Amino acid sequence: MAAIEVLRARLRAGLDHPAATTVIVGLILFNAVVLGLETYPAVMTFIGPQLLIIDQILLGIFVLELLLRLVVQGGRFIRDPWNLFDTVVIALALLPASGAFSVLRALRVLRVLRLISVFPSLRRVVSGIAAAMPGIGSIGAILIILYYVFAVMATKFFATIAPQWFGSLEVSLFSLFQIMTLEGWADMARELAETHVLAIPFMVVFILVATFIVLNLFISVMLEAMQRVNIDHGATSPDPQTVALENLTDEVQKLRAKLDQLTTK
Amino acid sequence: MAAIEVLRARLRAGLDHPAATTVIVGLILFNAVVLGLETYPAVMTFIGPQLLIIDQILLGIFVLELLLRLVVQGGRFIRDPWNLFDTVVIALALLPASGAFSVLRALRVLRVLRLISVFPSLRRVVSGIAAAMPGIGSIGAILIILYYVFAVMATKFFATIAPQWFGSLEVSLFSLFQIMTLEGWADMARELAETHVLAIPFMVVFILVATFIVLNLFISVMLEAMQRVNIDHGATSPDPQTVALENLTDEVQKLRAKLDQLTTK
Amino acid sequence: MAAIEVLRARLRAGLDHPAATTVIVGLILFNAVVLGLETYPAVMTFIGPQLLIIDQILLGIFVLELLLRLVVQGGRFIRDPWNLFDTVVIALALLPASGAFSVLRALRVLRVLRLISVFPSLRRVVSGIAAAMPGIGSIGAILIILYYVFAVMATKFFATIAPQWFGSLEVSLFSLFQIMTLEGWADMARELAETHVLAIPFMVVFILVATFIVLNLFISVMLEAMQRVNIDHGATSPDPQTVALENLTDEVQKLRAKLDQLTTK
Amino acid sequence: MAAIEVLRARLRAGLDHPAATTVIVGLILFNAVVLGLETYPAVMTFIGPQLLIIDQILLGIFVLELLLRLVVQGGRFIRDPWNLFDTVVIALALLPASGAFSVLRALRVLRVLRLISVFPSLRRVVSGIAAAMPGIGSIGAILIILYYVFAVMATKFFATIAPQWFGSLEVSLFSLFQIMTLEGWADMARELAETHVLAIPFMVVFILVATFIVLNLFISVMLEAMQRVNIDHGATSPDPQTVALENLTDEVQKLRAKLDQLTTK
Repeated sequence: MAAIEVLRARLRAGLDHPAATTVIVGLILFNAVVLGLETYPAVMTFIGPQLLIIDQILLGIFVLELLLRLVVQGGRFIRDPWNLFDTVVIALALLPASGAFSVLRALRVLRVLRLISVFPSLRRVVSGIAAAMPGIGSIGAILIILYYVFAVMATKFFATIAPQWFGSLEVSLFSLFQIMTLEGWADMARELAETHVLAIPFMVVFILVATFIVLNLFISVMLEAMQRVNIDHGATSPDPQTVALENLTDEVQKLRAKLDQLTTK
Repeated sequence: MAAIEVLRARLRAGLDHPAATTVIVGLILFNAVVLGLETYPAVMTFIGPQLLIIDQILLGIFVLELLLRLVVQGGRFIRDPWNLFDTVVIALALLPASGAFSVLRALRVLRVLRLISVFPSLRRVVSGIAAAMPGIGSIGAILIILYYVFAVMATKFFATIAPQWFGSLEVSLFSLFQIMTLEGWADMARELAETHVLAIPFMVVFILVATFIVLNLFISVMLEAMQRVNIDHGATSPDPQTVALENLTDEVQKLRAKLDQLTTK
Repeated sequence: MAAIEVLRARLRAGLDHPAATTVIVGLILFNAVVLGLETYPAVMTFIGPQLLIIDQILLGIFVLELLLRLVVQGGRFIRDPWNLFDTVVIALALLPASGAFSVLRALRVLRVLRLISVFPSLRRVVSGIAAAMPGIGSIGAILIILYYVFAVMATKFFATIAPQWFGSLEVSLFSLFQIMTLEGWADMARELAETHVLAIPFMVVFILVATFIVLNLFISVMLEAMQRVNIDHGATSPDPQTVALENLTDEVQKLRAKLDQLTTK
Repeated sequence: MAAIEVLRARLRAGLDHPAATTVIVGLILFNAVVLGLETYPAVMTFIGPQLLIIDQILLGIFVLELLLRLVVQGGRFIRDPWNLFDTVVIALALLPASGAFSVLRALRVLRVLRLISVFPSLRRVVSGIAAAMPGIGSIGAILIILYYVFAVMATKFFATIAPQWFGSLEVSLFSLFQIMTLEGWADMARELAETHVLAIPFMVVFILVATFIVLNLFISVMLEAMQRVNIDHGATSPDPQTVALENLTDEVQKLRAKLDQLTTK
């Protein structure tokens, strides 16, 4: 048992070594290039089989690294969401990808996202963005409710006169998303306005409401980020005024001690 | 009379019970699905009558819930704007919706917005957004004045050469809104520029002025939100400086008390 | 002379009276409606001459009000930029507007902008926006320099292959403004890319540089607004900590006085 | 040797003289006009050779100024990045610009960017923007990784059905950049959706992810700018709290000195 512990400690030291990280980063970058080259039919004609073999070897290395990390970390492995992330993007390549699942083959490139999980600084940015999510959940929920309401209304109003845009609920949802990105909305509005008197008011109201809510969503993401920065700042370096105040309090306490001496003399 | 009071108290307890809220949320979501299904002609052919009956039953439940809340809250009912909101979105379904008023039928889906009034967290977000409104009223007024002025000018300049965009004041107002969303403005400007030398300067000035005012509108919404957050923050957790200051004041007051002792000795 | 002074004081009281402001606002709004109606040929056919007479009468009243304000304020009149603003928008209607100057007729609607100068709250918003201008002057200058440089390069690169977009320096400047609004830029880039290898890199670099500078422009407008809010806040209400510190200093000074008494006793 | 030192000091005084700066600014502006005029074929037919000669003379003056600055500043010259900037934009004009390098001729207009390096206020804005770069490096890296991953996926999904947009990796990268600017994305999505069921989810997910990351990029640029402003502000004008705190500390120190007197009496 002790021998296993020693092996585990050595493995951990090996995996945490900067050189190991550099090698992994290099292999992911190399894999990214290989996956990129695989999209060129001309390249595949020449060295297609070789690229696929390299891809398999790289996959094998990544699987091995993941297994070693599982051995080293034991139970802690599954508590780190980044390990889950790595496992999923690697497991995608192990799933059968033939027939109806051929789309999974394209998802293999998600493995390149491991570049984010390898670098602590990138990981921190993603964690920060993810931490802002709960704070914007309420505004997101309101946006989704409004989307649904507007989509049902749009389908009832315009389904018969513009089936290509509002023919059914899911088509309307897509068109409203398009309108919210302000892409080609005016042409839609002008064409609908020829047959439906409410088309222009409907669109303008939707744009005003949707952009205003998205603006509030942006602002709440920003306020979350500002508070996060303030908290980080506060945690690492106390501000000079607080320090000055604490020094001053010390000074006054010494003064009091002196006065105590004087009184009891 | 006392019996009515007891009944009222029981009703209030029932309506405020978490289970009641869960049931209402479930019914609104179910109603949302029914209203969505009603937009599919194929679904309506099969189970149309059933859906309409379900819709009527749900409407009945919502009317009943509203009446019960009115009974329980009494005079306080009309002072809460959210009760007014609930009443309006439910009343829309009770209005006659035939002939010229068939548009009201589509507005029945607004009932789904009750999801916002049911959840306190969503209600708070909407209240927060609504509270920011007066603060941006001045910039909004300036934007509307400028819109009108630019629309009159655009109509005078371009009505004869591009009636499809600037044929009358209301058409110009819509086109200027389109230009402000930066959608398809360049094609309009290039076509107008062929016959009117002022087309491009007019458009560019309008875009610069309008986007700058909208930017200021966004900033003032953001500043409102920041101040709201600061006020909330200030109320919940005292900052370290204030704590340090209070400690210091305590210390000095003790010093003075000691000195008073010394003087009066 | 004293009689004139009395008359002046009475005039001032009359002009500053809330009722006078209400009347002026009403007349400007009425004038806005008249100027709007003048854009409808059908309306002009029926009551065109009447509208023009009303317009002349309203103009007369505005000129009279301005003259009275000049009499009342005397030398102070020209020091207030809003008086200059009012004078210019009214004077526009007094200029000859025939022949080559017919464009001036359309500018008469600028008179409606007096709604901004009448309301102190709107005036303050415009002053605030204007006050932010010097702070963004440097970024604005950099943006203009970059525009010019990119326009000269674009003209040299693409003048022969796409004269409709980059035929000459002024056409290029307009096209680059269009590209900066991200309107229809991709179609331009794809068409140019067929004949010029640098088209896509040029466009992408321009978009990245221009949007990044515009972002910095937005941020500096926002920071100006935030500091303005802080200064306003600071000027009207001192923050509680500073007040607490000043009270504490008072306390310590009294303590010292007491100690002085003690020493000299 | 002393004579050279005297000459150097005189040269430095001359180059730093406001008049010298004014002359240089005037020459750059004049050069900007000349370079602009060179883009007009009609102008080149008339005074083309003269313009080219003027351009050569101006270039000579700029080279001379740069050499003089090199002489005056000596070793310090290369440590200032703005000197490097000036050298590069001037050197571009000295490179051979015939045949395959004719593109370099168009880059001569970059010389106009020296207007930025001449004015300290503009230089400071650019330095500020450049200083914000490292802070956004992490988000930028994540954006690039995601771009690459989405481009490989898009090529695998859509290369055969829409080669004009996703035919190869580089074409996909450009199309995704276009989609991120929200320009014409909806038409692409609708056309792809006819043959590929994943087209619309793919586009919507990409737009949501990309805009959200760009939003976070904007926010981090803004937070950098806010902290920079706070630091600048702190350095130039002390805030009232710090002043009050310093007064208080002074007061307490005097108190202590008095008490010391009392004790040692």
